[in-house]
Amino acid sequence: MGELSDLKKQLLFFKTVDRMKMTYRRAWLTDQSRTENDAEHSWHVSILAMLFSNIMNQRGLDQLKVIRMLLIHDIVEIEAGDTYAFDEEGIKTKKERELRAANHLFSILPESQGAEWKALWLDFDEAGSPEARFASALDKVHPFIQNYFAGGKAWQINRPDPEKVLKRLAPIQEEFPELYEEVERIFQESLDTGLLQYQ
Amino acid sequence: MGELSDLKKQLLFFKTVDRMKMTYRRAWLTDQSRTENDAEHSWHVSILAMLFSNIMNQRGLDQLKVIRMLLIHDIVEIEAGDTYAFDEEGIKTKKERELRAANHLFSILPESQGAEWKALWLDFDEAGSPEARFASALDKVHPFIQNYFAGGKAWQINRPDPEKVLKRLAPIQEEFPELYEEVERIFQESLDTGLLQYQ
Repeated sequence: MGELSDLKKQLLFFKTVDRMKMTYRRAWLTDQSRTENDAEHSWHVSILAMLFSNIMNQRGLDQLKVIRMLLIHDIVEIEAGDTYAFDEEGIKTKKERELRAANHLFSILPESQGAEWKALWLDFDEAGSPEARFASALDKVHPFIQNYFAGGKAWQINRPDPEKVLKRLAPIQEEFPELYEEVERIFQESLDTGLLQYQ
Repeated sequence: MGELSDLKKQLLFFKTVDRMKMTYRRAWLTDQSRTENDAEHSWHVSILAMLFSNIMNQRGLDQLKVIRMLLIHDIVEIEAGDTYAFDEEGIKTKKERELRAANHLFSILPESQGAEWKALWLDFDEAGSPEARFASALDKVHPFIQNYFAGGKAWQINRPDPEKVLKRLAPIQEEFPELYEEVERIFQESLDTGLLQYQ
């Protein structure tokens, strides 16, 4: 067996990450028919970034970098699984599980590309660069807006503490204050209508 | 009722395009559990573009433009439906149905953003710019590779004429000859193993 060509490695990676379509999350679709998967989430949060291109421009962010990060940020979950944002036990082992998955998955790629993608993922994961902080803030706001537009179904099932939900959205306050105002309005409305409830 | 703010329009658009997750295509997942939807396809073909960033660089293509096009290219299908590539009757009305959907959907956005996104979609749809031709070629190759990696299930169900399958892939020959060589190899293997069959 010879070494695979770069193109064959890339197609093998392409095939491997098809499993993003089979990795399900807590958030529901707006028609409440089922929960969404990581491929759908990654597409939708990339659209969210695209919608806010003016904001990225104003902040001098590299839009391509933000969108590339969002497209690959959850690929590790095909091996590490989706860790629910309010699962305190799962979060303890998340970093280690995801790093192991990143080492394996990005090693499928041609070497220099694999190293570059792993660095991009790590930057996102650690919210290192300004682009990573913006992308990470959008990634946190996505399920909140998704859950709201899906009639709060995930909140009714999982019953997260509203204080923790709001706290998780704090990064958006710095990254995009105008969106945070809207988030606060939605949060208050969701409390008023009982979509989000204190125990 | 006052006019919606730009941000509210953007969030309404975000909510509307959630239906991409409910718009199903002919291609199957690699585990053959079900067909994929437009959100999943759009994510996966954007990953394919990212994998080929070196090729885009060599050709002097604007990568952000290619990826933005791929992220939005199928949004019209939430209203116009997915038209099977080998459905000759459906293809006759596709342009008109999709243009009507584009006019409606992009009008949800703030005016200047809506005009910009519609122009981006039209450019893709007409394969006008070099970026649009590259993106469109990847969009044609995506279901071919997807079907191959899914064990040819869509081909067994829909029985497309192999000549038409290959002809549809012709744009990749000019855009990315090295990938076309791989595509030809996969095509031949699929004939040899009976995944694709002449009637």
